Amino acid sequence: MSSGSISSRSGKARSLVRPLVHKLHAYIPGEQPKIKGLIKLNTNENPYPPSPKVLAAIKAAVDGRLRLYPNPTSQVLREKLAKFHHCAPENIIVGNGSDELLALATRTFVESASGTKASRTETSRSTIQYFTPSYSLYPVLAAIHGARTNAVRLTSDFRLPALDVLKKSKAWDFSAALTLVTTPNAPSGRGFTSDELELLCRKHQGVMVLDEAYVDFAEENALGLALKHPHVLVARTFSKAYSLCFQRVGYFVGHPTLITALDKLRDSYNVNGLGQVGALATLDDLPYYRANFRRIRVTRTRLSEALARLGFDVLSSQTNFIFVRPPKFVARAWLEELRKRKILVRWFPDPQVKDYLRITIGTDPQADALIRAAGRILNGR
Amino acid sequence: MSSGSISSRSGKARSLVRPLVHKLHAYIPGEQPKIKGLIKLNTNENPYPPSPKVLAAIKAAVDGRLRLYPNPTSQVLREKLAKFHHCAPENIIVGNGSDELLALATRTFVESASGTKASRTETSRSTIQYFTPSYSLYPVLAAIHGARTNAVRLTSDFRLPALDVLKKSKAWDFSAALTLVTTPNAPSGRGFTSDELELLCRKHQGVMVLDEAYVDFAEENALGLALKHPHVLVARTFSKAYSLCFQRVGYFVGHPTLITALDKLRDSYNVNGLGQVGALATLDDLPYYRANFRRIRVTRTRLSEALARLGFDVLSSQTNFIFVRPPKFVARAWLEELRKRKILVRWFPDPQVKDYLRITIGTDPQADALIRAAGRILNGR
Repeated sequence: MSSGSISSRSGKARSLVRPLVHKLHAYIPGEQPKIKGLIKLNTNENPYPPSPKVLAAIKAAVDGRLRLYPNPTSQVLREKLAKFHHCAPENIIVGNGSDELLALATRTFVESASGTKASRTETSRSTIQYFTPSYSLYPVLAAIHGARTNAVRLTSDFRLPALDVLKKSKAWDFSAALTLVTTPNAPSGRGFTSDELELLCRKHQGVMVLDEAYVDFAEENALGLALKHPHVLVARTFSKAYSLCFQRVGYFVGHPTLITALDKLRDSYNVNGLGQVGALATLDDLPYYRANFRRIRVTRTRLSEALARLGFDVLSSQTNFIFVRPPKFVARAWLEELRKRKILVRWFPDPQVKDYLRITIGTDPQADALIRAAGRILNGR
Repeated sequence: MSSGSISSRSGKARSLVRPLVHKLHAYIPGEQPKIKGLIKLNTNENPYPPSPKVLAAIKAAVDGRLRLYPNPTSQVLREKLAKFHHCAPENIIVGNGSDELLALATRTFVESASGTKASRTETSRSTIQYFTPSYSLYPVLAAIHGARTNAVRLTSDFRLPALDVLKKSKAWDFSAALTLVTTPNAPSGRGFTSDELELLCRKHQGVMVLDEAYVDFAEENALGLALKHPHVLVARTFSKAYSLCFQRVGYFVGHPTLITALDKLRDSYNVNGLGQVGALATLDDLPYYRANFRRIRVTRTRLSEALARLGFDVLSSQTNFIFVRPPKFVARAWLEELRKRKILVRWFPDPQVKDYLRITIGTDPQADALIRAAGRILNGR
């Protein structure tokens, strides 16, 4: 292959890429703009910093050891997480954020679709299934892996459809290779009970991932299901509740057979060393974080009530964000108006949720600023 | 699916895993034992710590920002790397170590093998090709992706086979979807010239990755080929030469079309924030690292000469390790004898290299300790 002209070089480079990849649209993460004084309520980050003890532990590890490879299996962290969750290290795999593990799950449990007409069983084996709306990464991961998707709508108020309805409608595939459930859900903020999740899991033949990225802000969690049912994995992350987005540490809990399978596909040194240090120190200072969870829940209640008084339709939230349908103007216009006032929230263009805004719970002063801005927008000031 | 007995639960969990995954053997990284006083020359880490300025920059970043997501595309780092390599940010993708990018390359450029009888073109499209011996991760990545492998032996002294020989033998596939060349090579330490690499690249139709993990210890590099040929990618890492293994930062340089394709499959926040900070600070303090490269090359020469005097067959090295065939005892026995003396080196069981040891270049005192230990082992002490 010669170097050639610019256009012929691009054409040649293009021919080297798999057709599947050409068709992909990349996942669009929330903006990370650097605007002075910006109130950033768009990516569900925690408004409070990591604990001083965690920062000190990470700083103390920034020395000559950086020249060495980190522990390839995050062994010490897995041991500590196992104690925390009353299970064995073999029940746990640590990832470069839980996103890495979600992608690994597609490659571990789901066949790529062949394109030719498939039997019902073959279809299930290559299907990634999820409710909508939920985490917008799931269809991206399915497309990357060349898997089929089965996206089933939640009810109009974002609850799980009743099991009878799922069974009768035949839209839901109880044998899908991989079913991903965000719980509590995003972007709705709705919590699903362990009881309803267990009823759903019990009917399933394929792998179920309960993605509990926001569970620390909720009233209950479903971790027990991952230790009880061999086909259930629970995903957790240090990013949001534990203020470590920058460090990329998430994990799955589940049956050792599933964990071992995921582990075979994992990059050898997938979790950076300072991330392991930060996560370990976090588990030593949980009271600091639990106090933050309480503060965020109190702010959530106060913000929800204030926006409701202004005419917002505010969904009950079990997360560190609220999902609201604003009054008077369309949601997209609110996004722009708030942005003009240096308040950044998240809006999704999908028809099912385009009337809503997702607002991360920030500090109390940030909530006050948002309430004031909303009042002014409503009054045309 | 009910919970059931332990063995039936394992059986059920096993049935949920793709058959391809069952067959996999995980990549075995070099040991990371925690033995006091151990001289660790087994994983090609740099014996010298990151520069004091880099450590200071990372420490200074350990603050409230850890609660925020890092830049998803490593934008600032890509801009700085582009200046460094006289190209554009669009020529660069940054990964969670170059291992992540090598895995991404398999999924971006190579089709999975269907299992049914394939035409010659289909076979090439699903083939990952490499020379042996080279980086032992390549066949693991191929197996994970369900790709065919084409492994072709280097000459007996670990040189590239002559182009005519490759063409005549028909063992080499010039249309393979992805060809991975470690240069300078591991574990041999042998450097390939840019000229011979370019001759090889020119004959290729598929994507070529020139994996330059060790290039900073070599006399020349092939980066120019990635900017000249649309099907050539060069892989680099901050791990070895820049003493940042712990932090997981590597990158590819190549044609924007290939880079964009890789980027579509990348996890959104794949590079941890402190890794980006560390890599940026590294590029601001290159003289510190260049002094280390010189020291390591000087130690490499001294160690090579001393071991040669003791009867070792020492291959000429362009890397931060040497590949040696020890005298008197088999290599495996040397591995054990050195380990007894708290010196850890690497031995690979593959028949092609089982007579050799790979020894990372450490500090001068570590080289002296190794020379003394080798002398004692030879003298039966």
